[in-house]
Amino acid sequence: MAENRQILIASLPAGALAESDYELRTGPVPEPGDGEVLCRTLAITIGAGQRAGLQGSASYAGAPTTGIVMGGSGVARVEASNDPSLAPGDLVTGPTGWQDYSVHRARALTKVDGGGDPALHLGLLGVNGLTAYFGILDVGQPKAGETVVVSAAAGSVGHIVGQIAKIHGCRTVGIAGSDDKCAVLTGELGFDAAVNYRAADFRDVFKAATADGIDIYFDNTGGDILGAALRRMKVHGRIVCCGVVSQYDTSDPAPGPRGIPGLLVNNRVRMEGFLVFDFADRYDEARRAMRGWLDRGELVARQDEFQGLESAPRAFVDLLAGGNIGTRIVRVAG
Amino acid sequence: MAENRQILIASLPAGALAESDYELRTGPVPEPGDGEVLCRTLAITIGAGQRAGLQGSASYAGAPTTGIVMGGSGVARVEASNDPSLAPGDLVTGPTGWQDYSVHRARALTKVDGGGDPALHLGLLGVNGLTAYFGILDVGQPKAGETVVVSAAAGSVGHIVGQIAKIHGCRTVGIAGSDDKCAVLTGELGFDAAVNYRAADFRDVFKAATADGIDIYFDNTGGDILGAALRRMKVHGRIVCCGVVSQYDTSDPAPGPRGIPGLLVNNRVRMEGFLVFDFADRYDEARRAMRGWLDRGELVARQDEFQGLESAPRAFVDLLAGGNIGTRIVRVAG
Repeated sequence: MAENRQILIASLPAGALAESDYELRTGPVPEPGDGEVLCRTLAITIGAGQRAGLQGSASYAGAPTTGIVMGGSGVARVEASNDPSLAPGDLVTGPTGWQDYSVHRARALTKVDGGGDPALHLGLLGVNGLTAYFGILDVGQPKAGETVVVSAAAGSVGHIVGQIAKIHGCRTVGIAGSDDKCAVLTGELGFDAAVNYRAADFRDVFKAATADGIDIYFDNTGGDILGAALRRMKVHGRIVCCGVVSQYDTSDPAPGPRGIPGLLVNNRVRMEGFLVFDFADRYDEARRAMRGWLDRGELVARQDEFQGLESAPRAFVDLLAGGNIGTRIVRVAG
Repeated sequence: MAENRQILIASLPAGALAESDYELRTGPVPEPGDGEVLCRTLAITIGAGQRAGLQGSASYAGAPTTGIVMGGSGVARVEASNDPSLAPGDLVTGPTGWQDYSVHRARALTKVDGGGDPALHLGLLGVNGLTAYFGILDVGQPKAGETVVVSAAAGSVGHIVGQIAKIHGCRTVGIAGSDDKCAVLTGELGFDAAVNYRAADFRDVFKAATADGIDIYFDNTGGDILGAALRRMKVHGRIVCCGVVSQYDTSDPAPGPRGIPGLLVNNRVRMEGFLVFDFADRYDEARRAMRGWLDRGELVARQDEFQGLESAPRAFVDLLAGGNIGTRIVRVAG
């Protein structure tokens, strides 16, 4: 008889997150009720934004608590269905959480195309890819020949942003936290330049890599990196505010960068935040475009994988320490 | 025989500007050369942005120095012309500086309509009015029923911004630095509410005046007021970055407000700087619209006047201390 392994939030971290903030519990597989669907988790994805959901202060993810299954997005196979819209064997994405089995109302799930690796629906064809697509194209509005800088460029969103900008004729500069990541950016992922923000000569190297200024800065980090980019923005430049990873793993947020709003006025810079959910009516358009780029080899969907549900806390802590290159995936079942 | 009185920059202020940073010199009236025009200054306008031009650090106004005539915009009558495009008696605006007479190439001057008070070309129909017009309408994009908050709302730009927003069906809240200014805002200028940011209960009163949140915040100040507005922005709100008066009269700029970029992301807020010069090809459209509102009594062009060229330094110091309501004008000649 099957069991359901679940990873619970054991404690809310005051400072940096630790694996010990989680605990594993094993219990029975749940039964779907009327109109409900039983899902078997195949893979989950972990993103830095989930760290904000563990903070006591309000975030768009809602208030956190302990003793519950850790939330998160996954791709799953339908095992049993009491709703006519889904049948056993269907592939779906949804808020599976960190567990083997979960029960949902059918409308909380999205049926997806079964072709290829199911985990693609958590990366390029999921929220990460959609965020990259609408952020760089709709908010950033790149033009061929422009210089696009991406922070956390080796991350799940950033590595796709740079490639989409390149497809649109831009010169791309990635900022990442290690020389290894920078090598992947300029190698496999085709960035024109990459800068390690942890290197002692970061300011000089960054200045050289953006010698003609920045047209679009895609910000996944906030903090000091945002401050450095702000001072190199060209007239009529755009800053796409996507995430604030520098502030997620702390309970003491830093002040905003100096020069706001003065530099925005002098250089007529637009700085705009967005959430991908506002573009929900255009997801199909974005998925078609990205599947096309992938199939033609114009874009690499890089996945950075951990094996087994029990590895999820380690995968999360490692992600927050900057360990991933591409979309972090935890494989739960084959 | 006529003399030319000129006010020179005697010293560059390290901290707050003082009248003693200026000195008066009297000399001969200059002679226009080939293609040049001699102008008699009728009135000059003084804006807080000019303070930035006296700072040693770079600003869009260029680097400052001492021993030269203080720069500034004025309205003038042509006294003599060696250029066929202008004739004696014509009314022009241009960079007259703080002096009775000045000589310019004709193309540095703009011939303006002679109807009404010439000083209107320094306020509503000049750079201040144009800044208000394009800032609120093109950058802010107000919709009827939205709540628009303006800082430095009694200032040369702010008092026009609020009235244009009101004409477009918005609810308007002005922020100003005294109860007297607030009374003028809700009285003569028709704002729906006004808040004194120097009052001890500012936060509470501001919160009550923006109980449903802010759709557009027109920022003339930066600093703490920007920080307070940022926390009250509605989803898809817009922050129009026009000026940074809180930072002009100091050589120690403050850090940016906390919550940038996190609040911009969560609330999908757009924050955008602009300079009016980028809209130069649409000045006629704006002037026609504003003249129409003025003639129909839908808008008040408030002028706050000092008499005589020698009063200009006092008018500037007083302006920086928050003394003006409306556009500060110094009348130089009748």
